[in-house]
Amino acid sequence: MSKEKFGIAIHGGAGTILRSKMTAEKEQAYRSALEIALDAGYAVLAKGGTSLAAVECAVIKLENCPLFNAGRGSVFNAKGEHEMDASIMDGKTLHAGAVAAVRNFKNPITLAHKVLLHSDHVLLMGEGAMEFAKPYALDMESDEYFHVDHRYAQWQKIKGSDSFQLDHAKEDKKYLGTVGAVALDMDGNLAAATSTGGMTNKKFGRIGDSPLIGLGNYANNKTCAVSCTGSGEYIMRGVTAYDISCLMEYKGLSLDEAANESVMKRLLDLGGDGGVIAIDAQGNISMPFNCDGMYRGMRNQERREVSIYG
Amino acid sequence: MSKEKFGIAIHGGAGTILRSKMTAEKEQAYRSALEIALDAGYAVLAKGGTSLAAVECAVIKLENCPLFNAGRGSVFNAKGEHEMDASIMDGKTLHAGAVAAVRNFKNPITLAHKVLLHSDHVLLMGEGAMEFAKPYALDMESDEYFHVDHRYAQWQKIKGSDSFQLDHAKEDKKYLGTVGAVALDMDGNLAAATSTGGMTNKKFGRIGDSPLIGLGNYANNKTCAVSCTGSGEYIMRGVTAYDISCLMEYKGLSLDEAANESVMKRLLDLGGDGGVIAIDAQGNISMPFNCDGMYRGMRNQERREVSIYG
Repeated sequence: MSKEKFGIAIHGGAGTILRSKMTAEKEQAYRSALEIALDAGYAVLAKGGTSLAAVECAVIKLENCPLFNAGRGSVFNAKGEHEMDASIMDGKTLHAGAVAAVRNFKNPITLAHKVLLHSDHVLLMGEGAMEFAKPYALDMESDEYFHVDHRYAQWQKIKGSDSFQLDHAKEDKKYLGTVGAVALDMDGNLAAATSTGGMTNKKFGRIGDSPLIGLGNYANNKTCAVSCTGSGEYIMRGVTAYDISCLMEYKGLSLDEAANESVMKRLLDLGGDGGVIAIDAQGNISMPFNCDGMYRGMRNQERREVSIYG
Repeated sequence: MSKEKFGIAIHGGAGTILRSKMTAEKEQAYRSALEIALDAGYAVLAKGGTSLAAVECAVIKLENCPLFNAGRGSVFNAKGEHEMDASIMDGKTLHAGAVAAVRNFKNPITLAHKVLLHSDHVLLMGEGAMEFAKPYALDMESDEYFHVDHRYAQWQKIKGSDSFQLDHAKEDKKYLGTVGAVALDMDGNLAAATSTGGMTNKKFGRIGDSPLIGLGNYANNKTCAVSCTGSGEYIMRGVTAYDISCLMEYKGLSLDEAANESVMKRLLDLGGDGGVIAIDAQGNISMPFNCDGMYRGMRNQERREVSIYG
């Protein structure tokens, strides 16, 4: 193992992604978007940048793409608004920053990174997070920027009902969202970042797993960096991201064994759909998911891959 | 071990609780309040009630007492408001309910229990949680009810500054708050509940560990039930509650070994102050803390104890 081994993995959500419902054009659009994010994050690492910078960079690209449920492509909540969650964690220091239910930030992941860098707190929410952000002059966007037609159509179908995405009785399952990135840099430091627009028709100030350290996002140089996607409530109850780290640290499993145990067995036993991307301190990458597909990609010095189906 | 072994443990916060700064009268008031909560929770178990009912009952008593930083005794945030967090988890089903930044609920733990019972979600926040609560006609209280003089005095000392409680440069550390309960019932089911008023002069919509499953609160019949108290951000980064469960499940440690490893070593290594109460499926109870004191109590068929100092 070379000390200078580095790599990155990204995801753009998991769920009922069926080849039969995908056009060649749409598939190409997803693949291109994933490649752009992957290559941007990888370029940061190749230039000697930190894993924190690389995961932020990759997630920004995914947030800026209307195809994914994060940033610009965020779904509509029950009020027709876009409330976004994001988190980032530094595996070297175990410092973390996260935000929940923030609006109009072009890149919630950058706001989460500011929380990591400049706050004594880990998790800030709503208008309070907006107040915190004032000194940093982050890019803000109007509601129109976040109005993406296919998201609006998804909302119109269930608006006014008690349905929301991830309702397991619904075909809406196929819209499981969230984006994320995990990376190992040349200095051997791990980082993880996750960002989401939540659930279509979301009510009651629901917070999912994405902004929660140990649940949807975790990084620790001793073990691994993990970003989750899927049915958030099950990931929360499974404490999935930290579970993978513990299976490595306390049970001595490899990254791949740990990620598979957590996603293909423990999360499934709870009844949860989803997947993770994970990287360990040796640069091994694991990307298991227990549903039909997961938009994902990985790149290191040897391989560069983007995939969608199982 | 009898199948009908049962027991409960509670806490009322940990921190710089010094015998030298305590009057006999004040100490007696804390002890009485802890005994009332402990005995109320225990009575539920002794009558064959569930651990979920017992921990809710004990936490309600602590929330109703102005001495503790939860419910009525909740501290003032930077706006002079009382924003409360609470969570509850069922070790049998791994279902959980939690609320963050809710106002005017007399008993946030009861609201969290409603989320567990009646929502597809785990964590609801702010006004959304209030909207969710409407059908359940929970007890609401005016802002005056939550105005407790010694909390107001604490706030006045740091109001308008950037200080907040848990700032390690400040003597405010002694006011570390939060209440919690963990229990094992006659049927062998575990449950955990945690409730807090957060930090004096809290800004930016900060959410701490208390409402976060796996961080400040966790229960799993396979291992243990845990409620944490202390410097929330460190408990979040340490994923302390689930860490104790993983040390038992994956490393084979006993409850006491796991709780001590997590609190006296891992949390300290991060720089965090605090403690936990924990109970396992055999009825063993562990209550380690790495600071001067923790308001705490435990009761089973053999013992009944209330303690404050180390």
